[in-house]
Amino acid sequence: MSQGFVLWFTGLSGSGKSTVADLVVPELRERGVKIEVLDGDVVRTNLSKGLGFSKEGRDTNILRVGFVANLLARNGLAACCACISPYTEIRDTVRRQVEGDGGTFIEIFMDAPLDDCIQRDPKGLYKKALAGEIKQFTGIDDPYEPPENPEIVLKTHDAPPEESARQVLEYLEKESLIPAA
Amino acid sequence: MSQGFVLWFTGLSGSGKSTVADLVVPELRERGVKIEVLDGDVVRTNLSKGLGFSKEGRDTNILRVGFVANLLARNGLAACCACISPYTEIRDTVRRQVEGDGGTFIEIFMDAPLDDCIQRDPKGLYKKALAGEIKQFTGIDDPYEPPENPEIVLKTHDAPPEESARQVLEYLEKESLIPAA
Repeated sequence: MSQGFVLWFTGLSGSGKSTVADLVVPELRERGVKIEVLDGDVVRTNLSKGLGFSKEGRDTNILRVGFVANLLARNGLAACCACISPYTEIRDTVRRQVEGDGGTFIEIFMDAPLDDCIQRDPKGLYKKALAGEIKQFTGIDDPYEPPENPEIVLKTHDAPPEESARQVLEYLEKESLIPAA
Repeated sequence: MSQGFVLWFTGLSGSGKSTVADLVVPELRERGVKIEVLDGDVVRTNLSKGLGFSKEGRDTNILRVGFVANLLARNGLAACCACISPYTEIRDTVRRQVEGDGGTFIEIFMDAPLDDCIQRDPKGLYKKALAGEIKQFTGIDDPYEPPENPEIVLKTHDAPPEESARQVLEYLEKESLIPAA
């Protein structure tokens, strides 16, 4: 593998980040790509235990994920990051870091309407947030800033996850970041 | 490069960890090894800002360094970690993690007497610790547990850093982890 890259899934809770990532990653490994997954759970356990969900806590968390993703990408590996990452400024900071070290940053916007995410609520978190049991929940009482120029937009409420995964793989093929199937 | 490995320098402040690492790393890159440096400064800035120097804070810090080092090693890259890492139990936890994922863990004990480190005191930290201006300083009012079975022991008070670096490189050659010069 020659060029490292970072797949950066961003979107609301319940927008399908991990679902799509979980379909993309095995297919990439199948094609010989060395890729590590840095999703919310992995990161909060191994890198950011104790950080809160204030803007500062979230920013610190995302910068750590970006630091690790960049270590992988600049050595020719791939990283798949699936974190809400609600703030444009910090996503762009990570992008500059990755691109500055020669890696490719692919921002994947999970463009699902808030109402759909609330309907799906796979972890029951919106219910708690709407009841005031969880504070600073993105989309409810904390902002989500959509990407302005993402490399990929996935309308996950309109398409099955397999279709979204296919879109990601086709993008990577088109950009010659992975071999064709 | 086939097999990933972790060079884990452990020892008192002032024992020469970063000095020796700074000689080893460029030589490894020269020989085609893809290696990332995770020393105290890099880590405290990018992974562990805000963590204190209590046993819990130190342990969390070392586990994060180990997590990242393992991500690199299990993908065939190398990591060079230079942290005091005073506690045996946590160093062994990292070792198990790395070896469990198929990487090679090389513990390098900087076996310099405390008095020598205090004499050298390159950052002026022992002076402050002895004056009570820094608390929980390893060797002064916090313990250092020497490794019981390190792969490499460097008597850095008896030998110039170049000699210690040569010892590390020879070990890696002997273990076929790097090509001969």
